[in-house]
Amino acid sequence: MKRHFDEDLDGLAARLLHMGRLTEEMIQLAVRVVVERDAALAEEVKKRESEVNELHVEIDDRALKLIALHQPAASDLRLIAAAIKINSDLERVGDQAVNIAETGLFLLKEPTMKLFDVPRMVEVAASMLKDSLEAFARKDTALAQDVIRRDDEEDRLKSQTFNELIHLMQSDASTIQRAMDVILISRNLERVADHATNIAEDVIFMVLGKDIRHKHVSV
Amino acid sequence: MKRHFDEDLDGLAARLLHMGRLTEEMIQLAVRVVVERDAALAEEVKKRESEVNELHVEIDDRALKLIALHQPAASDLRLIAAAIKINSDLERVGDQAVNIAETGLFLLKEPTMKLFDVPRMVEVAASMLKDSLEAFARKDTALAQDVIRRDDEEDRLKSQTFNELIHLMQSDASTIQRAMDVILISRNLERVADHATNIAEDVIFMVLGKDIRHKHVSV
Repeated sequence: MKRHFDEDLDGLAARLLHMGRLTEEMIQLAVRVVVERDAALAEEVKKRESEVNELHVEIDDRALKLIALHQPAASDLRLIAAAIKINSDLERVGDQAVNIAETGLFLLKEPTMKLFDVPRMVEVAASMLKDSLEAFARKDTALAQDVIRRDDEEDRLKSQTFNELIHLMQSDASTIQRAMDVILISRNLERVADHATNIAEDVIFMVLGKDIRHKHVSV
Repeated sequence: MKRHFDEDLDGLAARLLHMGRLTEEMIQLAVRVVVERDAALAEEVKKRESEVNELHVEIDDRALKLIALHQPAASDLRLIAAAIKINSDLERVGDQAVNIAETGLFLLKEPTMKLFDVPRMVEVAASMLKDSLEAFARKDTALAQDVIRRDDEEDRLKSQTFNELIHLMQSDASTIQRAMDVILISRNLERVADHATNIAEDVIFMVLGKDIRHKHVSV
């Protein structure tokens, strides 16, 4: 019984990490729609979205069955609860990627647009997401804390990009439509970083059994 | 033991509904910062945020203890899992209210600005949130379905507001800064409606044990 439980728990974690890798790919592909001006990549994002949506349902189902069949104790139960929450966050990361790809398709119809700090925002958000899942896999609270710290950098980049785009729109009204699109994309990336932060907080709760949410000040 | 469990389950639901009412109030107060141009109301939003954050931690804690102490069967377990997810959504609704209040404070420093369909967006989002929690309390799947349907109306209002604001910015560059602020607020309200939709989907899963997520097409 115990061995069976451990196998099921490993299976749950493995599926969640697979879902995490898919959402990372989706973000990278979605931003390439914009940077490489390649509409075909938006299709690749959509394809992965179906798979992510199926995983979303499957992982919740696995988690509830695990609780119902076995009677997990404190730390195992915290792992399963963390998996349920991380599952929701990853599904929403996938939604953000779809939004970026869709906005990207609009941008392709406009003249080339300066992206300001968006490429740097992608790097930060994608690395935060990757490391939050690595922290989950390794039960590494130090790495999770590091992810949480990096969210401030992402917020700073977003504010800077936002101000530069407002300035551009004010000085040249012909850029308004496409500047708005870049603002939307930078907000999508900020939200990906927020989801990575949520995941990192869930990892710390899972490992330490201590709730650190709302204990640090966010900008 | 059974009676004790039922009392704990009722307590969990009661705290969640209390949290829901607080977040509804926060949204209404935050929008009044903008409509009534009253900065003091932003303080009221912040006060309630602290309480919501405390409830967020408390409700997760109650839910995990319920699972660990009792061994809930299928439908009770689904209720507890739904509570954990609704808890996350409500906490994020609170965040959206804080964002609206903060953007509202910026808008107060600018000349009065036309709000287009924002007041209607508030009505739709607030009623969706209220009804999604009512559906949870009454285990009412018909009401939950109705909430899900209304999300299309909110998306339509957001797109319309968005297009009108872009047009305004293009015709009068002096409005760019404050038009951007109204766009951000309309996106916050759209996200509140998304959270209400998530809650409604969780209610349907809780009652029917059937996962309807990703089965309906959203615009």
